[in-house]
Amino acid sequence: MASQMSEKEILSEENLKLSKALRDLSDIEGKLEKIDDQVNQYRISITAPVFEERYNVISNIPNFWKTVLETHSEFSDFIPVSDFKYLELIKNIKVNTISNSDFSITFEFDQLQKANFPKQKITKIFKLSKDINDLKYTSKLTDEQLMDMQEFGFLTSEPVDIVWPSDYDSINPKKISSKTDPNFKQNYRAGMKTFFSWLNWTGLKHGKEFPNGDGLANLFMEDIYPHCLKHYIESKRDFEDEVGGSESEIDEDEEELEGFHVDVISKEEESEEPLKKKMKL
Amino acid sequence: MASQMSEKEILSEENLKLSKALRDLSDIEGKLEKIDDQVNQYRISITAPVFEERYNVISNIPNFWKTVLETHSEFSDFIPVSDFKYLELIKNIKVNTISNSDFSITFEFDQLQKANFPKQKITKIFKLSKDINDLKYTSKLTDEQLMDMQEFGFLTSEPVDIVWPSDYDSINPKKISSKTDPNFKQNYRAGMKTFFSWLNWTGLKHGKEFPNGDGLANLFMEDIYPHCLKHYIESKRDFEDEVGGSESEIDEDEEELEGFHVDVISKEEESEEPLKKKMKL
Repeated sequence: MASQMSEKEILSEENLKLSKALRDLSDIEGKLEKIDDQVNQYRISITAPVFEERYNVISNIPNFWKTVLETHSEFSDFIPVSDFKYLELIKNIKVNTISNSDFSITFEFDQLQKANFPKQKITKIFKLSKDINDLKYTSKLTDEQLMDMQEFGFLTSEPVDIVWPSDYDSINPKKISSKTDPNFKQNYRAGMKTFFSWLNWTGLKHGKEFPNGDGLANLFMEDIYPHCLKHYIESKRDFEDEVGGSESEIDEDEEELEGFHVDVISKEEESEEPLKKKMKL
Repeated sequence: MASQMSEKEILSEENLKLSKALRDLSDIEGKLEKIDDQVNQYRISITAPVFEERYNVISNIPNFWKTVLETHSEFSDFIPVSDFKYLELIKNIKVNTISNSDFSITFEFDQLQKANFPKQKITKIFKLSKDINDLKYTSKLTDEQLMDMQEFGFLTSEPVDIVWPSDYDSINPKKISSKTDPNFKQNYRAGMKTFFSWLNWTGLKHGKEFPNGDGLANLFMEDIYPHCLKHYIESKRDFEDEVGGSESEIDEDEEELEGFHVDVISKEEESEEPLKKKMKL
């Protein structure tokens, strides 16, 4: 039959075949995306009980999150150096998946009396929105960015009530006023960049709130939280390398656990700043 | 009871609690690693039938793999520029998972008469080994690298029989000899770097065979193969941008498929070098 077709007919036939193939590819891409979601759901369901167990264990390890956060290669890009002294107040963290796109992060803070910082537990919820009409300031966004936000969505969040440490009174946006503070603008901006401001981040005020707040939320969601043990172990290894490892203080006979050494842990570990103290040895 | 304990006893009690917590963390890390494997198995099982479907569709799309490979940002780091003209010979690719660490890659090559290159289908199997005694040359490896290879394993593979294109006769290790070729060393090295040499890569002769052969195997396994549709679509988008998108040749009314446009595909697509041809428009 093909031999009776003209060259033109054959070409058009081949074109149709190609079009069909490309349409099929598109269907397959859709199926693979659904599979990604399905695999993700599966991962969440079997990981949840282990994360719950991990949460309970971590609450018995002083400075666990401080250690993870202060040695994380990217976390420090998001917050000012002045925040680092408050990392030890983060006693525990929990991430909950709400849907494929939405999640919440819960922080449990210890009190710090000298900074009038009370024990606090706050939960910040992050939701994907595609409604760019909700945006309050768009002047910092290009048309292309806005189109991408409309197509792929963008993270948003409600501000969360948190008492700031009193050392931050001079930059705390709730405590400063343009009427009384001659450096209001500068201080307001400094305050805007702290971790505490991130807890008030909305995702709707580009250029007027904590910068790259969605980036920090995603960093917790995709890396810091699921891989916190790896980061913790790494920081212990780095530390071992720095103090000279087994030569200085490690008992060779001590038990080596699957995956990492516990032998670097000694009494100093319980003090507030074990890493710094030990580094002086 | 705690009030009756001395400070020393309390400290030692806390130390025990901490040691226990760290041991628990290590157990949890083990559990999370097992979950990773489990999720991976699940992904493979539900992806396999869709990949099979994709394989069949791709065989109807001329130059699919050529398009994916020549626009992939990392692939070109692995092979010499002279290999690029042979990419169009790759008609289809299949990756099979053998176990959590082992896999095979099958390449189906079209014939190229002018280079005496026959139609060939070859399967290269990659296996993880931890036995560094199998290594034939270790002079290029540091002690640390060897220890890591022993602990975490390294990819190995059997050489695969493949007929090289005759244009490569002067660098084909099977066709040149130090006795007859005054530039033997230079030509041998040039041949060692081609894609065809990668098919002979063993993972046991560091510095004496295709360089970073495990890197290329992993690139196929982890990125090129699972995400080939995304790369294909991206290359079409890049191309669209380059030729000026809808202004030049796209019919606005044409169907826009979920995820990507099919409208850039036209008759030129069927020719051997659609991208280059179109770029001249």
